[in-house]
Amino acid sequence: MTDLKIEVERRIAANGLAAAREAIAGYAIRTPLLPFSTEGGREVRIKPECLQPYGSFKVRPAANVLADYSDAELAGGVACPSAGNFGQGLAYAASRRGVRLTVHAPDKAAQVKLDVMRGLGAVVHVHPFDEWWRIMTTRETGADDGLFVHPVCESGVVLGNGTIGLEIAEDWPEADTVVVPVGGGGLISGIALALRSLGHKARIVACEVETAAPLAPAFAAGEPVTVERQASFVDGIGSTRVLDEMWPLLRDLVDEVMTVSVADAERGVRMAANQSHLVVEGAAGVALAAAHSPSLAGQRVVAVVSGGNIDHAELCRILAAKP
Amino acid sequence: MTDLKIEVERRIAANGLAAAREAIAGYAIRTPLLPFSTEGGREVRIKPECLQPYGSFKVRPAANVLADYSDAELAGGVACPSAGNFGQGLAYAASRRGVRLTVHAPDKAAQVKLDVMRGLGAVVHVHPFDEWWRIMTTRETGADDGLFVHPVCESGVVLGNGTIGLEIAEDWPEADTVVVPVGGGGLISGIALALRSLGHKARIVACEVETAAPLAPAFAAGEPVTVERQASFVDGIGSTRVLDEMWPLLRDLVDEVMTVSVADAERGVRMAANQSHLVVEGAAGVALAAAHSPSLAGQRVVAVVSGGNIDHAELCRILAAKP
Repeated sequence: MTDLKIEVERRIAANGLAAAREAIAGYAIRTPLLPFSTEGGREVRIKPECLQPYGSFKVRPAANVLADYSDAELAGGVACPSAGNFGQGLAYAASRRGVRLTVHAPDKAAQVKLDVMRGLGAVVHVHPFDEWWRIMTTRETGADDGLFVHPVCESGVVLGNGTIGLEIAEDWPEADTVVVPVGGGGLISGIALALRSLGHKARIVACEVETAAPLAPAFAAGEPVTVERQASFVDGIGSTRVLDEMWPLLRDLVDEVMTVSVADAERGVRMAANQSHLVVEGAAGVALAAAHSPSLAGQRVVAVVSGGNIDHAELCRILAAKP
Repeated sequence: MTDLKIEVERRIAANGLAAAREAIAGYAIRTPLLPFSTEGGREVRIKPECLQPYGSFKVRPAANVLADYSDAELAGGVACPSAGNFGQGLAYAASRRGVRLTVHAPDKAAQVKLDVMRGLGAVVHVHPFDEWWRIMTTRETGADDGLFVHPVCESGVVLGNGTIGLEIAEDWPEADTVVVPVGGGGLISGIALALRSLGHKARIVACEVETAAPLAPAFAAGEPVTVERQASFVDGIGSTRVLDEMWPLLRDLVDEVMTVSVADAERGVRMAANQSHLVVEGAAGVALAAAHSPSLAGQRVVAVVSGGNIDHAELCRILAAKP
């Protein structure tokens, strides 16, 4: 395949962000930038992607990647691996295009998300985690289920994510820092490339949760390394290793990596409910916690609230805990 | 005092909505209209005022009413009766204008809201409910605490609320029905007057909770009547009687009154958390339930989500209940 970074930069130079914005209109909403806090002399605003259909930014890349193909190219169907959010967004976009979709999900995926995909007409196959990860890294589903779409390493995906950066640049040209949770790395890459292409000077801070934090060690080693992963309520981000295909993008685009404790991620979830009346997922709690770290005092900070898909029992456990 | 309805219509005719929009910029955000559901063949979009600073639409009227006065007129301070949300909004606006504010609160007011007001520099006096209601109806605080601002019956307040109608008209000219929770009646009056002045044809549906529902009986009797009130988790709306001063506005502007059960209001709160990842208050749950009533099937419906100030223990009790 072509080098992803070159391909994305070529498309951005050819007005790809404006095209992506047009492609996702009617699927994703243009989220506002909400004033959030002035704690510790900083000014934090949040990008509430939890307000998107299906509760995650993923509807942007899903709608955009499908728009890259003609009806004829999609006639044989589409297949993608997803733990949930991307699959939901793609199922939504595919159902509106009348395209047959097969989602390959890991066995730890939330049943409610698989039900949503099936409700939208997708065929869902559940695999043991290692087999699912093999599909993620090899792009081989083992079945003749159509055009393969990767949920992260795909120029249409990165550009779809880039529309968030486009909107941040429009809404707050003066922002000093943008804090983004890192899972596969597609979200932060899209946002950073968009901001850079628009001449926006914000520093790009990646954040990850301490229990599944492969990015900081990758920067330390100068290449992706495999780390241990412990389960936590933060289930939307954090694998055991940065995807090799994403590393060149992350290496060039990320200015700083912050690692957040589970307790601080919970504090972020509580802050979102208390201050903005938003239900946010663990990954978003990580970003909110990082945005309030002492090192960002005095700055104008955007925290990207990636989504709101959190189990309500977990949410209520966190809300009931003493701050 | 001048007749409120005449005064508001005069100001709207004199470009008062555009002026209000300008006055509240920097205090309130322009909320998006979010796609919410297509249940039962209808299309429901929501106006999420819970995203406003201090979690309620009330920052709009509070910021706007203060903008009606010069610094000289405000030099002696401002006083208002409020059970919480308006007082918070006014405390925020007053602190930024450098104006001394006294809030008269009922003894049932939420302590957390009184703490916010005091944190913003307001003086808060707590009164027994009957004494508080006397202040609401007579505008006599019994103290020399400055210019009196009523939280509902005030043209600047109604116009501030009208900015919501202005935004709905811009975002969805095709809406058939707008559903608004009714407390004092200032919110629905402002929205209805704004829509009407812009030539928008939407029907205006008022909704109230069955445990505190004075509006439907007022329409039946042709005048305000006093009803029984039972406590419920829906604490942002519902008194025992429509304010006499608001009745001429409500009588002319409201096309239909819907009365919602407490169980359906809880369903509305659950829907907001599940579908839009929003924490909403009981009054907003009432509006969401009304928007999904069988009688609105097939229509394009806006539900105004008035705010998000709900006790988290109540929220979690509702989320844990079976739908």
